[in-house]
Amino acid sequence: MIGGRRPLHGRKLGDRRVRVERPHSAYFRYTGPGQLTAKATASAPTTPLGRAWASVRHVLFGRQLSNEEEAYERLPKKLALPIFSSDAISSSAYATEEILRVLVIGGASAIIFSIPVAIAIAAMLAIVSTSYRQVCRAYPSGGGAYVVARENISQIAGLIAAAALLIDYVMTVAVSTASAVAQVYSVIPQVYDYRIEIAIASIALITIGNLRGLREAGLVFASPTYMFVGLALLMIGLGFARIITGTAPDVPPPSDAVAMGTAPVTGILLVFLLLRSFAGGSVALTGVEAIANGVPAFKPPEAKNAANTMTMMAILLGVLFIGITVIADTFNVLPTTEGGPTVVAQVSAAVFGDGSILFILFQAATALILFLAVNTSFNAFPRLAAILAKDGFMPRQFSFRGDRLAFSWGIVSLAAVAGVLLVIFGGDVHALIPLYSVGVFVCFTLSQIGMVRHWNSSRDSGWWWRAIVNGGGAVLTFVVFLVVVSMKFLDGAWLVVVLVPTLVAMMLFINRQYAASARQLALRPDQVMTAPDREERVVIPISTLNRAVVQAVNVGRSITDDVRAVLVSDEPEMAEEVREAWQRQMPGVTLVVVESPYRALTGPLLAYLDVLDQAWPPDTEAPITFVVIPEYVARHWWERILYNQSTNRLRTALIGRPNTVVTQVPYRREEPALFDRTPGSEEA
Amino acid sequence: MIGGRRPLHGRKLGDRRVRVERPHSAYFRYTGPGQLTAKATASAPTTPLGRAWASVRHVLFGRQLSNEEEAYERLPKKLALPIFSSDAISSSAYATEEILRVLVIGGASAIIFSIPVAIAIAAMLAIVSTSYRQVCRAYPSGGGAYVVARENISQIAGLIAAAALLIDYVMTVAVSTASAVAQVYSVIPQVYDYRIEIAIASIALITIGNLRGLREAGLVFASPTYMFVGLALLMIGLGFARIITGTAPDVPPPSDAVAMGTAPVTGILLVFLLLRSFAGGSVALTGVEAIANGVPAFKPPEAKNAANTMTMMAILLGVLFIGITVIADTFNVLPTTEGGPTVVAQVSAAVFGDGSILFILFQAATALILFLAVNTSFNAFPRLAAILAKDGFMPRQFSFRGDRLAFSWGIVSLAAVAGVLLVIFGGDVHALIPLYSVGVFVCFTLSQIGMVRHWNSSRDSGWWWRAIVNGGGAVLTFVVFLVVVSMKFLDGAWLVVVLVPTLVAMMLFINRQYAASARQLALRPDQVMTAPDREERVVIPISTLNRAVVQAVNVGRSITDDVRAVLVSDEPEMAEEVREAWQRQMPGVTLVVVESPYRALTGPLLAYLDVLDQAWPPDTEAPITFVVIPEYVARHWWERILYNQSTNRLRTALIGRPNTVVTQVPYRREEPALFDRTPGSEEA
Repeated sequence: MIGGRRPLHGRKLGDRRVRVERPHSAYFRYTGPGQLTAKATASAPTTPLGRAWASVRHVLFGRQLSNEEEAYERLPKKLALPIFSSDAISSSAYATEEILRVLVIGGASAIIFSIPVAIAIAAMLAIVSTSYRQVCRAYPSGGGAYVVARENISQIAGLIAAAALLIDYVMTVAVSTASAVAQVYSVIPQVYDYRIEIAIASIALITIGNLRGLREAGLVFASPTYMFVGLALLMIGLGFARIITGTAPDVPPPSDAVAMGTAPVTGILLVFLLLRSFAGGSVALTGVEAIANGVPAFKPPEAKNAANTMTMMAILLGVLFIGITVIADTFNVLPTTEGGPTVVAQVSAAVFGDGSILFILFQAATALILFLAVNTSFNAFPRLAAILAKDGFMPRQFSFRGDRLAFSWGIVSLAAVAGVLLVIFGGDVHALIPLYSVGVFVCFTLSQIGMVRHWNSSRDSGWWWRAIVNGGGAVLTFVVFLVVVSMKFLDGAWLVVVLVPTLVAMMLFINRQYAASARQLALRPDQVMTAPDREERVVIPISTLNRAVVQAVNVGRSITDDVRAVLVSDEPEMAEEVREAWQRQMPGVTLVVVESPYRALTGPLLAYLDVLDQAWPPDTEAPITFVVIPEYVARHWWERILYNQSTNRLRTALIGRPNTVVTQVPYRREEPALFDRTPGSEEA
Repeated sequence: MIGGRRPLHGRKLGDRRVRVERPHSAYFRYTGPGQLTAKATASAPTTPLGRAWASVRHVLFGRQLSNEEEAYERLPKKLALPIFSSDAISSSAYATEEILRVLVIGGASAIIFSIPVAIAIAAMLAIVSTSYRQVCRAYPSGGGAYVVARENISQIAGLIAAAALLIDYVMTVAVSTASAVAQVYSVIPQVYDYRIEIAIASIALITIGNLRGLREAGLVFASPTYMFVGLALLMIGLGFARIITGTAPDVPPPSDAVAMGTAPVTGILLVFLLLRSFAGGSVALTGVEAIANGVPAFKPPEAKNAANTMTMMAILLGVLFIGITVIADTFNVLPTTEGGPTVVAQVSAAVFGDGSILFILFQAATALILFLAVNTSFNAFPRLAAILAKDGFMPRQFSFRGDRLAFSWGIVSLAAVAGVLLVIFGGDVHALIPLYSVGVFVCFTLSQIGMVRHWNSSRDSGWWWRAIVNGGGAVLTFVVFLVVVSMKFLDGAWLVVVLVPTLVAMMLFINRQYAASARQLALRPDQVMTAPDREERVVIPISTLNRAVVQAVNVGRSITDDVRAVLVSDEPEMAEEVREAWQRQMPGVTLVVVESPYRALTGPLLAYLDVLDQAWPPDTEAPITFVVIPEYVARHWWERILYNQSTNRLRTALIGRPNTVVTQVPYRREEPALFDRTPGSEEA
């Protein structure tokens, strides 16, 4: 962006011109000797394009926030609950369906097992959330599985947890968005054809919301979650009333229902089916860890508030999940093939009446909470990525914060990867789910193993029963992890099994890179640096003689007297013309013409620099070579394709050359050539 | 590419180490005082990746050619004919079909007009080729419509011709490729489903062939053209023999034949139909101008050889076009809907026998000549683009030549645009054709008007009859231009009518940019430049204190004593640590800490530079500000994402700042920090 430039005097601030008396006061506060603090004006854009872009950003993302405003961005429980638990709670919209899809293969005699399977999963939820309450209290700085596993087990365990979490967040975005769209086409079947477009548009919207910052997202995200929970509880109440009064309807199987198995399944096959349906339904547990990761976003006392929100969430999720499963089972609801209504939509149609206002409201709330569940990941993924970046396991950009205190890189990366996944899997929830729950159980297991070791080393009062809670949770979640991986391996879980070690390897690799560069760059703390005694030499690659070249030569002459211009050319006649003009107009500056019959520019120039170095007396240090490159500054971005194409390649090649520094001397159209207003001043 | 670097001493050449005695001799020949000529070794790659890439290029594109080898890249007539006329001749494969597709609407009574329409078009071909013979002789340097119109009419006329030609070349590539694939699926209907993939693959192949250079392309391209012409003449001979002997078969209409009109068409409607069919069939003339544009590629005497090749081509094309039309008419061949066999395939099936070896051979030859006809454009487009680039009407890159003397930018751009068109139009010849012939007739008209003015001003012997030939041609082609535009306007010709002025405007705009920059950069020839008397100041943006920073400070100190480091930071504690270390380890160098609560880096730094400038005494010239940026050099391209992300943005912003030069000081991992081997040398 050329937009950084500003006029030298009387810079425009807002609408009035400021008279400059203390020059720094417009942009800085003086905060100590050699110490200034920038005001917002210091980074205000000054070009029309820059200002326009700033206005767009202001409208989309809100005004800039300074670091001090962070403290205000804290969430009270009534906002934290919908924000951090929309993911977990909303999984009740598809978990029952995943159970039924498996059991339906075993026919009517297998389907009745859906309720015990759901209860088993809810029991696991109780155990996992109890363990995570302990995480909230032990790690008020908001660690989640990564921090817990790294601190208590090992770095590698931490990275495995981090990789699994990152995958999990991406999957949350993909699955919840796909499921939300499925709720919509359960009501309006025509939407099915536009499911991908709608999914992508929703992700874009949520991305923008998150780039705007956390608190405003909270307000947006609170109402649909409460609406969903309220309506779902109403639906379950009405459903149970009809079951108790014996007026439960028998839902006629939809025309596109999945074919039901006819032979009764028993023995080992039944066990396999139950395990598979358990693995499918365990997707209900995804998102439970989000609160533990986000403890610092709670209002103080952070840990206590987070732990209580965790319990609240687990109770709500358990009630909804079991309630919906019981009704679906009693009403004989069956899953449909891709494109048909979802199980939860059939349940609400049966309870509220198909086409009734309550049915439509509930479907809308389900779709909304699912669309918004995505926000849990948009809170968690960038935070985790930023922690990893600060620890040197991801590129540093992930820890840069944008104007609105949001980690822009993480937000945008998450949206991009999830969008690609949605397109690849054609927006099909059922196809995406096998990739989903594997990572979750890896995290659960690692973080609980970590907690056991944490209690073991802390020896606080009651440490041993806390350790038992977490240890039991660890064993249980590890078993479930094995069940999920083995049952869903061919359906897609293998991909996660491959991806987690790949991500861990990448993170280790990045860390090694940063560590190596830091080591190589480190100074001994006692080293005192004084100015070195190195000669300098200036080489100026040129293609003709013009004002930009004169400017570069003058910059070169201000560095040292050892200045030479090099013309690499494949047209000898033109080179001769330049030489003739050069000798007349640039007296005292050497020009070397290098003929390049192969039309290459960079190669011959580098070779020439090598020749210069080799010609230097071998017992002295070679001088610093300043390659001074004249550039013509395009006024507009679209003009850049017209200029400096060959110098850009040259610059890139020179960056790798030892003893060489590259100096770009831009010639700007608008200003007169400031360095060459010279005709007749003294020779340097 | 970091690959340009090479070790300082004993550089490896081929397989043996060269002892350096005269340092320049490995890369250069000494050709005069201050004058070197680069050997091929000077641009040989030195990294493994660079060498690997060079080998790939060698295999795909052949060895590097020096400028002196260009003369050998000339074509004898027997190669020039197939290369430059494959486009024109191959249009006989679809021109008849375009006539029939229109006339079939008028029913059987209209179809009989196909022969007179074809003869009219052939007559126009005779006139146009005669005019172009004169262009070859008058412009032995190979102008074509652009040069002729620019020199004789006006710059704008030249640019209109150039725009029309560029469009025409792109369309040649798209239409010929699509038609070639249609010939293939006339024999193997299953190919229809893969038509786009095959078309794109063929264009890729021809692109590679052209990047390899002209002559090798000639050998590849000769045989299919001769094979097509031979088989087509055989087919016409056999067909005419059966017509004369009265044994012409009545081809049964294929199941997917276009529905034929039933009501006989007369009066004004018949005229309209005939004009439309003439407009469709006039696509046969496309490509005729290629020879005139390529005169310098002929062996000497260039003009004479080109003119004779032109006549030869016109005769061949005329015979084939009329012959095929007569047979198609007599045998009652009808065009089919998209996906069915082409007219020329039906003709050859009727003559040679469906499924016979000759039929298959002829279809193969037709497909090949069409695939290869594309090569005419791959010769002509980059040459024209290079001429336009040298004249400053297109970005300069189009005149850069690659290793194999081919204009790589032009070749690749042509392939890309044509590929996109093919995909958009679904590879349908008939849909593409309306965009095709408009541009051709614009060129014909302009170049012939230009020739009239050329003869008029040259007044050579016989100038007046030459002017009459060209004048007649101009009138005729202008009338045809009007017919084509009006008849095909809604079918797609409007797009060309919009595109030509758009391209002309773009070229004028580019030219204005280049002219403006050259004017602003120009020196008065009598200006003698001496060293200016400007102060220098060095500002070094830092984020920490490490060896890269020390290196940058030392480079800064070698420029001037006025050096100050600036730390822009949003973490005051970290900034304080850096300051403490700085004062201990960098005595004598000022450090300014700028706190940036809004986390921006670039804005506050630019503001600080402004403050420095404003603090300068107003009656003296502000000094040159050297912004010296420490950089960490990534060893591999994939490492770059990890480093220098913020300095890249800073550099871009600084390029636009007046009085500022940007110096990049790269710190390379492998070499010890060459500028900071200092502990204890004298202060500068």
